[in-house]
Amino acid sequence: MVCEAENPPPHADGPRTAQRFEIQETYRPSAPAPSNPALNFPCLDAIESRSARLSADCSSASRPGFSSSSSSSSAGPEPSYTSGVTLNYHCRDPLLLDWGGVLPSFNIAYESWGRLNADKSNAILLHTGLSASSHAHSTDANPAPGWWEKFIGPGAPLDTDRFHIICTNVIGGCYGSTGPGSVDPGNGEMYATRFPILTMQDMVRAQFRLLDHLGIDRLYASVGSSMGGMQSLAAATLFPDRVSRVATISGCARSHPYSIAMRHTQRQVLMMDPNWNRGFYYGRVPPHAGMKLAREIATVTYRSGPEWEQRFGRRRADPSKPPALCPDFLIETYLDHAGEKWCLTYDPNSLLYVSKAMDLFDLGYENQMATQARRRAREDALATSSYSPSDSAADAHCSLTLPSEPYQEQPDSSSSASDTSETPSSPANPASFLPPADLIRGLSPLRDIPTLVMGVASDILFPAWQQREIAESLRLGGNRNVTHVELSEETSLFGHDTFLLDLKNVGGNLRLFLD
Amino acid sequence: MVCEAENPPPHADGPRTAQRFEIQETYRPSAPAPSNPALNFPCLDAIESRSARLSADCSSASRPGFSSSSSSSSAGPEPSYTSGVTLNYHCRDPLLLDWGGVLPSFNIAYESWGRLNADKSNAILLHTGLSASSHAHSTDANPAPGWWEKFIGPGAPLDTDRFHIICTNVIGGCYGSTGPGSVDPGNGEMYATRFPILTMQDMVRAQFRLLDHLGIDRLYASVGSSMGGMQSLAAATLFPDRVSRVATISGCARSHPYSIAMRHTQRQVLMMDPNWNRGFYYGRVPPHAGMKLAREIATVTYRSGPEWEQRFGRRRADPSKPPALCPDFLIETYLDHAGEKWCLTYDPNSLLYVSKAMDLFDLGYENQMATQARRRAREDALATSSYSPSDSAADAHCSLTLPSEPYQEQPDSSSSASDTSETPSSPANPASFLPPADLIRGLSPLRDIPTLVMGVASDILFPAWQQREIAESLRLGGNRNVTHVELSEETSLFGHDTFLLDLKNVGGNLRLFLD
Repeated sequence: MVCEAENPPPHADGPRTAQRFEIQETYRPSAPAPSNPALNFPCLDAIESRSARLSADCSSASRPGFSSSSSSSSAGPEPSYTSGVTLNYHCRDPLLLDWGGVLPSFNIAYESWGRLNADKSNAILLHTGLSASSHAHSTDANPAPGWWEKFIGPGAPLDTDRFHIICTNVIGGCYGSTGPGSVDPGNGEMYATRFPILTMQDMVRAQFRLLDHLGIDRLYASVGSSMGGMQSLAAATLFPDRVSRVATISGCARSHPYSIAMRHTQRQVLMMDPNWNRGFYYGRVPPHAGMKLAREIATVTYRSGPEWEQRFGRRRADPSKPPALCPDFLIETYLDHAGEKWCLTYDPNSLLYVSKAMDLFDLGYENQMATQARRRAREDALATSSYSPSDSAADAHCSLTLPSEPYQEQPDSSSSASDTSETPSSPANPASFLPPADLIRGLSPLRDIPTLVMGVASDILFPAWQQREIAESLRLGGNRNVTHVELSEETSLFGHDTFLLDLKNVGGNLRLFLD
Repeated sequence: MVCEAENPPPHADGPRTAQRFEIQETYRPSAPAPSNPALNFPCLDAIESRSARLSADCSSASRPGFSSSSSSSSAGPEPSYTSGVTLNYHCRDPLLLDWGGVLPSFNIAYESWGRLNADKSNAILLHTGLSASSHAHSTDANPAPGWWEKFIGPGAPLDTDRFHIICTNVIGGCYGSTGPGSVDPGNGEMYATRFPILTMQDMVRAQFRLLDHLGIDRLYASVGSSMGGMQSLAAATLFPDRVSRVATISGCARSHPYSIAMRHTQRQVLMMDPNWNRGFYYGRVPPHAGMKLAREIATVTYRSGPEWEQRFGRRRADPSKPPALCPDFLIETYLDHAGEKWCLTYDPNSLLYVSKAMDLFDLGYENQMATQARRRAREDALATSSYSPSDSAADAHCSLTLPSEPYQEQPDSSSSASDTSETPSSPANPASFLPPADLIRGLSPLRDIPTLVMGVASDILFPAWQQREIAESLRLGGNRNVTHVELSEETSLFGHDTFLLDLKNVGGNLRLFLD
């Protein structure tokens, strides 16, 4: 028999149970027994249990881990991604996005600390990383510690005695600002994957609508780490007259292919989860297994190999037990735990849209010009009265996205014995690296803006050469007020996560810069 | 309505088609239209098409991409992972494995090049990487180029005018040597995940059974790259009297947590594919989507960021089209293509077992002693006549594998603002790094064996410090004949893949060493 789909294979514990019974009876199995026992898969059991639990939750009408954003029409007793106690600004003017999409209206959920002074000149806009919310610091309404709790406060690097600090939730996310889990005013349904493609600049434009609303004409500083470090730069390129200082920490001016590759695998693993259902999972069991694994992959990029070598080494979770295909080494149970903690706390569709926006980030001049041209054409089209907003975008999205020809290996790189000695120097080689003229020109709006650029040598996701690239581009573009700090491996082995952990060096340099 | 599972959400092209029709009719949709069109997911369409095709293949009785190993009972017209033209050695003596499993008999499929001389003193055992087969070089029976085609031949680094080169397929794999897709003589069914946990040393012991059979008492050299670099060292620690020289290229003496983490994510993504079915997918649609994605993750680790920066940069596959959540950047289509090429060419269960064996690799003395003790206890048990081979192993596998307590963050590493300035020096820091005494002792069987250790600075999977660790351990253990070569980033940006590509430097140093 060749195809035996109708004959369901025994699960892991089926044959073992049977075999044990026979061993107890006779000490020699009479039916043929396998030479070795089947392995167990507790990691899959855990996923299946969660699916069953979420499914049960769902049928008992408490929705599984899902929030509707504040603009959602279906409120309920279900848990929410949001704290529920953010400030909210609802903007009724449509927001045109860089790739042609439109948000007819949108919400910005945000938090703030410290007093805005009379002339509104002491505001600092703090940009978040991908999965961080506006809750950077505890508030009266939400006393839980924030992700930068010790960096914000009286006398802290972001000194609430001096500054009014505003942290927003990005559009596209799931913490109360409009995202894929919000209701589309166009049809009254949740956007899901009818949400339009976003860019960092779109997120920043939405933030500046909030600043308009608050009457803040000019920021004392734009500050951000990781994805927030991208946005901090983007704010100054879009609105150079409204930003007095820029601090960008463990960020970049353009995403590089390794980071795109790592985010690609996270998106793919999520989209492969059958529960993702092409984005239409709201009100059903969410793709928690895909989210868990996406977070595990992300976690690999957040720390450094040497740190793990020190922290986990090769220790197994329980050395008295035999190895398994499920998590077994301590590093594996650490990743498993990171995924478990996260898999129901962030909207899967938000992960897709926001991580894609990171991939698309490129402050090169050519990309900025192309975007401007695209926006003008779209604005013209939208100004035509008979125009339906989704018309041209629908056309543009129709054909997509894999090229008709599959990727072909370049002969010079895949031939099985090429001479590699003529490889040109790389951006990882500081001695020989010059940033491209396109990036120097693209960052020229920052020429007169004092800028702090910080990087960490052990960061593999936003490697230190990317911050050198920013600093060099600014200097070569004529900016005489660039501070570049690179924390060595001796200073921090915490890789990309250093910005969350290192109050002394990251906080200290930020404080110096803002003084 | 809170849970709407009974209301299947529209797929991507449903609403767009409807909306287009209305636009054509009236230029103003009368039914509510979404503000933006739904995205398309051609990458998911491709996976679903392949599933449908494989399912159809299966029902028309040609099995989808599956080989049975040569010991399988179910032969058929289906394609095979094996070339079908390897040499074969079937060993009828049971093989006891390091973690207690037993192969009652096993097959080794292998290929060889060059003549074995009269006193059988010119044999080189070449060990493969994880997914490579024994086909390192073309043969008369199989003229397809091998994975080291230019490294083997008359006058090549592995000189067939001088040496008899033997390359075997590892047990646990799917290229004809016994693995999870082979039939278990115990019950006449395919092993699947009733295959026992393997180690590198188990694979090497099986190889040496072949050498016994061929009458080769002592190897001229044990040579290998990547996983083969592990095995090359393992051969000399297990059989120091039978190995005259060791060459280990881009390998290591013990897996480090970053590489375990990357393999963990590959295993998890594969095991999450519903088609994997806990390993019992033979004769059904295989977990091709999980395999594809596992390969994409692996591919990320095979090259280096700087190489991709040069090769792909931020180029999109088709800049005239809007971005998409499916592959879009050239780096993404490259990864997609790498996964597509591979997803039906390797047995998913083999990937799990062989990658796990890599994680378990540790030539430290303590681990070697613990393994010896475990083997002795198991041998004693097996010698007891009333003993059923699967009995104690079944007990050992019963409880497993996640610790009952989830992983807890260490307070000193997760507190949100720790002082990181006292981080001790790391193995990535060559100035301060000394290999652990346990490893120096574990490698002491190689004290009198000339050893070539090669590494590549741009390798992120087997980073250069791991080869420095081998070389330093050997030297500190008293070996005066250690050659350590580290190819700089200027020499090669090809990362881990350098060993496949760099004939001049990798091949050249190997030739010098073997002379």
